[in-house]
Order: sequence, then structure tokens, then C-alpha cells
Amino acid sequence: MKITGLITLFFTGLFLGSGGVSAQEPIQAISPATNINHAEAELGKKLFFDPRLSKSGFISCNSCHNLSMGGTDNLKTSIGHIWHQGPINSPTVLNASMNIAQFWDGRAKDLQEQAGGPIANPGEMASTHVLAISVLESIPAYRAEFKQVFSTSKITLDHVTKAIAEFEKTLVTVNSRFDQWLEGDKNAITKDELEGYALFKSSGCISCHNGAAVGGNSFQKMGVIKPYKTNSKAIGLAGVTGKEMDRFKFKVPTLRNVELTYPYFHDGEAETLSEAVDTMGQIQLGKTFNKKENAQIVAFLKTLTGEQPSFTLPILPPSTDKTPKPTPFN
Amino acid sequence: MKITGLITLFFTGLFLGSGGVSAQEPIQAISPATNINHAEAELGKKLFFDPRLSKSGFISCNSCHNLSMGGTDNLKTSIGHIWHQGPINSPTVLNASMNIAQFWDGRAKDLQEQAGGPIANPGEMASTHVLAISVLESIPAYRAEFKQVFSTSKITLDHVTKAIAEFEKTLVTVNSRFDQWLEGDKNAITKDELEGYALFKSSGCISCHNGAAVGGNSFQKMGVIKPYKTNSKAIGLAGVTGKEMDRFKFKVPTLRNVELTYPYFHDGEAETLSEAVDTMGQIQLGKTFNKKENAQIVAFLKTLTGEQPSFTLPILPPSTDKTPKPTPFN
Repeated sequence: MKITGLITLFFTGLFLGSGGVSAQEPIQAISPATNINHAEAELGKKLFFDPRLSKSGFISCNSCHNLSMGGTDNLKTSIGHIWHQGPINSPTVLNASMNIAQFWDGRAKDLQEQAGGPIANPGEMASTHVLAISVLESIPAYRAEFKQVFSTSKITLDHVTKAIAEFEKTLVTVNSRFDQWLEGDKNAITKDELEGYALFKSSGCISCHNGAAVGGNSFQKMGVIKPYKTNSKAIGLAGVTGKEMDRFKFKVPTLRNVELTYPYFHDGEAETLSEAVDTMGQIQLGKTFNKKENAQIVAFLKTLTGEQPSFTLPILPPSTDKTPKPTPFN
Repeated sequence: MKITGLITLFFTGLFLGSGGVSAQEPIQAISPATNINHAEAELGKKLFFDPRLSKSGFISCNSCHNLSMGGTDNLKTSIGHIWHQGPINSPTVLNASMNIAQFWDGRAKDLQEQAGGPIANPGEMASTHVLAISVLESIPAYRAEFKQVFSTSKITLDHVTKAIAEFEKTLVTVNSRFDQWLEGDKNAITKDELEGYALFKSSGCISCHNGAAVGGNSFQKMGVIKPYKTNSKAIGLAGVTGKEMDRFKFKVPTLRNVELTYPYFHDGEAETLSEAVDTMGQIQLGKTFNKKENAQIVAFLKTLTGEQPSFTLPILPPSTDKTPKPTPFN
């Protein structure tokens, strides 16, 4: 026992010694989701995939936050009801629980508040909360599941968004190669990737893209050194606070899984990571990365791709004769 | 050994005795998919879920043949590129391998031939085969997987559709309550459901809806006894054969999982199973089912819901800087 204890202490010391890298770094490894209410998350998963929350019966949360594709739609701006062209790039739902707030302009304080937005947005799912709830209430299997999860015989928007948010909390992407490196595996990333990380820090990218999500924890002006030229009408945080100083301030996006979440920026105008790094260098840092530096930073960014959520495609309970019918064309 | 042999014989006899129900019935239990090339099917699953096969980057096979919803979109007629209103109801992909041919008018001889259609249909996915292939070829992980599966360094439409078809072959829904009954479990269905089945046979529904798929194995005129009134312009098999006698002949749909595949008929005009049974009775059989009979037949039909395909949501390999970009809005 005593010897085992000593050995444990010895290895713990070693582990902390190597794990110490993490403690000294401005980026931390992602931890698995904890305190998940699994029954609630399972219900939320169904809702996330259920297009009956939209007017058309065709668009679900997963349409624009596609979990097969990094939690995004990989489009410049999204497609909504009647092929409406959205005003902004869909941010990834992966690791979104770590964001300081939701939406690019932070107008929702958390995942639950966010989840209600698109359902009733005429340019997105175009339903109403009343209609969406009446659809769910018409389906006995949903009624039973809400009752089981929330001990209620009445489905409310609060239940719906709470369940979706609980599912979204599970969507953390652990064990990226960079996190393996942070946790002590020196061979997890290459020399070029490591040099890219060094550049990422020394050039100042890290001042906004830091923490476990490598971003997501502050609002920053798009165009600090040089103005950012765009046709997008989005004004960012100013639309929420009403303050002129918040104009063009957007939530700094997470760079986790950035390899999968192209195209980039709130307007989706940067098609490639290389282009995004180049533009960020110039307008935020006043720095022109040369070709090698750009490639090294891009290589580093690709080490941030974590394990993607792995789950069984949910089977949705069927509508009944009483379920309000989808109306895609009127 | 000898005793074991006798016991085996005895139990085999018992099994055949009860299984004999199945042998005498015009509907057979669904068998699990066999001879599946699993590597090919895994690749096909990714392709089935990949919206990059569409011009917009937004529509995948799963958009209209949603495997969370009985392999359909549960819409009267489907939504295609730029919200195009499709001319016909999306048939289920579940058990589609058992169909005599594919599409309502049978214009594709098998699943592989079908799979190429929607990709290049301007009102559906609106891509071209050339573009879709060039998207796939630009993605190293796809190139590697095609190479592994088909031992080829060049991706062709034939490979793409073969893989999708192989995945679709796995989508059989075994072990419905009705199949359990067919296989000897007398308690698997209720008295009302059994009476519904008896009515289904005695009224003549069974003459078209028979076999393991309870349909799918013949073309029949919509409106045998009375003409079917519809605004749909679909003319059915005549569009393929050019023969006037084939006008309004459609492939008889499978009734497997019919509880999940609402709305019904090629034009999607029957919103409920009860309505569909009523209309079929009148126009195909010259029979008016009373309320009780209708309910019993509907109850029987709901016993045909089998185990839905269960698999992990596929994670798609990311595009690269060279991948042709989706163009949803131009």
C-alpha cells in the first residue's frame, strides 16, 4: 500500500509535470460535458432533428447546424423558409455552451434563450412558438416523453428550449490533437503545427482566441487596425446594446473545429482558412503573414479538430391525424 | 447426438407448424438484408447524408427521404432547389430494395439507377453529375474511401450510385408486430388488428398489396372502379412506356411503415390513413368501408411498422480549398 502510494505520487508528479504545459498555456483542453440530464438531452436531440418545428416541415435545427458537418451548414449565409437568404453565417453549435452569449451579436444570453429564436424567425424556420408547441402536443409519444422528463402534462416553450439546450451541452469535441499535446503528448502535433501555435501567440491572435474554446468569450470589433469591407448589414453588438461603440463588435468565434466550419467570419466571406488568417492578421493585428507563417498557423488551427459528437440518428415519433400540417408553399 | 437430433427435429416441426401461418399468408415477413458490402454501404451512408451532392450544398438524399421520419419528408410533395415545389410525393426509401422498379412511374429499374436522378434534377438537388463528382474528388478522405471500396483512383457516377444503393439495401425494417404474428406469436397483434387484416384480404386490398413489402411489386391504375380526381399532372407508367393503357398506372406503394409515411398517394392528397383507406376502397374496389371496418384496417396497417434503421449519424469529411463551392443563391 505504502509503495503503491509512493508510486502513485511519483506518477502524479510526472503527469502534473507534463500536464503543466496546459496550466501555463492560454488555451485549455476541452473537458467532457458534465452534469447532463440524459433524458432531457435525448428529448432535445429529437427536437433538434425535428423539422416539424418549422412552418414548412422541412427545416430543423440540424439543417443549419448540421452535426455531420461541424455543426454548421458550410454556407456563406444560411437558407431559411422559402429559400430565404439569411443575413449572417451560421455559427457552429459545437462547444457553443462555452460561449459568453449566443448569436454573433450576443442577443441571447445562453443556449436555451437561443433555441427559441430560429423557430419563430420568419426567415429561418418561420413557425410560431404556439404552432410548434401545438404540433408537439398533438403527438402522444412526445407528450409522454415531455411528461417523463419534465413531470408536466403541458408542453411549454421553456421545456422545448431547455431540452434542446441540454442536448447542445453534450456537443463538446474533446481530444483534439492539440488537446492531446496540451495534456502532455509531445508527439500529438508536428513541428510546423507547433510553430504555427507559437506564431498564433506571438502575433496576438491569442489575445481574443483563448480559453478552452479558443474564442467565444468576448466581443471584439471586426476591423481594429483597418476597417473591414463587407456588404453585410450586420452591425453586431450595437444592435443589442444600442451603443455606437459596439458597432461591428461581434462575438469572437470559437476556433475549435475551425477546419470543419468554413466559410468564415460573420458574413461568411472568407472561403478558406488561409484567407481568414490573412484577413485577420491585416485588419485586427496590422500584420501581414508570409506564406510560410500563414501555412503554419493554418496547420495549427487544424489540430483543434476534436472528436465529433457520435450518436444514433434519432427516430422521430410520427404525427397523428390531429397534428397541424406543415405548410411549405403557403 | 441421436437424442439431440430428435429434439431438433421435434422443435423444427413445431416451428414449421407455427411458421406455417406465414407460408399460407399472402404477406411474408421481411428478412434482414443479406449480402451487404459493408464498406460500400458505409460510404453510401455518407453520400446519402451529404448535401454537397446538391448545387446549394443544402439538400441531401436524406432531406426528402428522411430516415428519422420513415424515409420520407412527410410533405404532400417535396421541396427542391430554390424551394421548388416537386410534382409528386416522395416515396419512402425504407424497403425500397424490394420494389419492382423505382419512382412512382418505375422509370428507374433499381436503386442504383434511381440514385443518380435527384442529384441532377433541376427541381431537386439541381447539381450535375460532373459537378457532384468533382466535389467528391476534391475531398481527400472521400478519394481514399472510394479507393478502398472500389479499388479505383477515379470516382465515377457509377461508384457513387452503387454505394448509395448499397446503403439503401440495408434499410429494411424487420420485426414489425405483424411479422411477429406471421412468425407464430399469436399475441403480437390484437383482435381488431387481426380483423382488419381479414378485411384487408377479403375486400381485395391484398390483390395489389401483397408480398414481403405489402406492395411495391406491380403497377396498377389509380382509379379502377371510379376515376381518381386530382390536380396532379403525373401520368404514371405511360410516361415511361408511351402506351395509353399505362396512363395513371403507378407503382403500388409498399405499406410497410405506412403509419410513418403520411401523407399518401402519388399526389400526397390523402392526409390520413383513414382517408387513404376510404379512397382506395371506393376507387379501386368499389367498396365503402364503414367506420368500424376503416378503423380495423387502419389498425392492421399500423402493425406493419418495423424496426427503423439504427445507425450512427455519419460525420462527413470536410471540403478543401479546392472544393467547388455551393451556389444556393445563383
